[in-house]
Amino acid sequence: MTSDVIKRRLAAILSTDVVGYSRLMGDDEEGTFDMLRQCRQTIDSCIAEKGGRIVATGGDSVLAEFPSAVEAVRSALAMQEGIAACNIDLPEERCMRFRIGINLGDVMVSGDDILGDGVNIAARLEQIAEPDSIYISGTVYDQVRNKLDLAYSDLGAQSVKNIDQPVRTYRISPVDAAPAPAS
Amino acid sequence: MTSDVIKRRLAAILSTDVVGYSRLMGDDEEGTFDMLRQCRQTIDSCIAEKGGRIVATGGDSVLAEFPSAVEAVRSALAMQEGIAACNIDLPEERCMRFRIGINLGDVMVSGDDILGDGVNIAARLEQIAEPDSIYISGTVYDQVRNKLDLAYSDLGAQSVKNIDQPVRTYRISPVDAAPAPAS
Repeated sequence: MTSDVIKRRLAAILSTDVVGYSRLMGDDEEGTFDMLRQCRQTIDSCIAEKGGRIVATGGDSVLAEFPSAVEAVRSALAMQEGIAACNIDLPEERCMRFRIGINLGDVMVSGDDILGDGVNIAARLEQIAEPDSIYISGTVYDQVRNKLDLAYSDLGAQSVKNIDQPVRTYRISPVDAAPAPAS
Repeated sequence: MTSDVIKRRLAAILSTDVVGYSRLMGDDEEGTFDMLRQCRQTIDSCIAEKGGRIVATGGDSVLAEFPSAVEAVRSALAMQEGIAACNIDLPEERCMRFRIGINLGDVMVSGDDILGDGVNIAARLEQIAEPDSIYISGTVYDQVRNKLDLAYSDLGAQSVKNIDQPVRTYRISPVDAAPAPAS
């Protein structure tokens, strides 16, 4: 495969999954499945509304790409808001909490799939994100900081699995949100 | 205009123009026009070959956008190589030298036009670039440094006109190129 046949595009890549999904499933398989279905309706519509596209799903995880980093971040904020609404009447131990990672990458395109470091970094950010939170890479931050009025917490350069260079990382939340508890 | 109607996309924005175009025109109007036409053939084909699109042209300037930062940089390298070939038999004072700036931006889209800081920064980088050179912003560097084996000269954070934040700037050249003369 030569560089001539590799197609590339800039994309904002969003990765999300459920914190403690196996435990939830172990406790109540059908209830968890039903709750996931509800949350996925919220997630899927938040992705579509901001011009995103679901690239892959697996169990509780969703990988999506957006043509705009600004819209990817808006989508993630709407997701967490919608998921919080789904959880509102549930006891703490049944709440379904998502974590979200967003990265900007010059990804390789293969049919409907996207590949490369840019995708892997989004997944790694998601894995280190706290429950209910959204972590973005420095490359996303560079594009949104002047355009979206949010609370940006600088988490420094994070070392993540199988990625050579540490990844500049920020936790974002709406400016009117209660401050996140210290981790 | 609300945010709902503003369409956005990530793009690599390339801005280029001729160094000393007015002087060249003053010296030899028709010869300069003919040389510009030759260079534009090279530039236009380098843009098209790498999947780019010409957004605007004016006199000696070309603004183009690419879906990929990697391809925008490859296009710029091919341009400078092609332009050097156009100049090869000309006396120094008739050489047509281009400078190129490339930025990555989450730009606003209006019909065939693109707008926003992301576009302005590309133009500003071009304006501070040396003759025959390619300057890229840090946001482009972040996407290409692991993917393209080039000589990257870190020029630090440059203050540019009408842009609040200094712009991380790199000069790039092929690794096999003769070292750039000290400026």
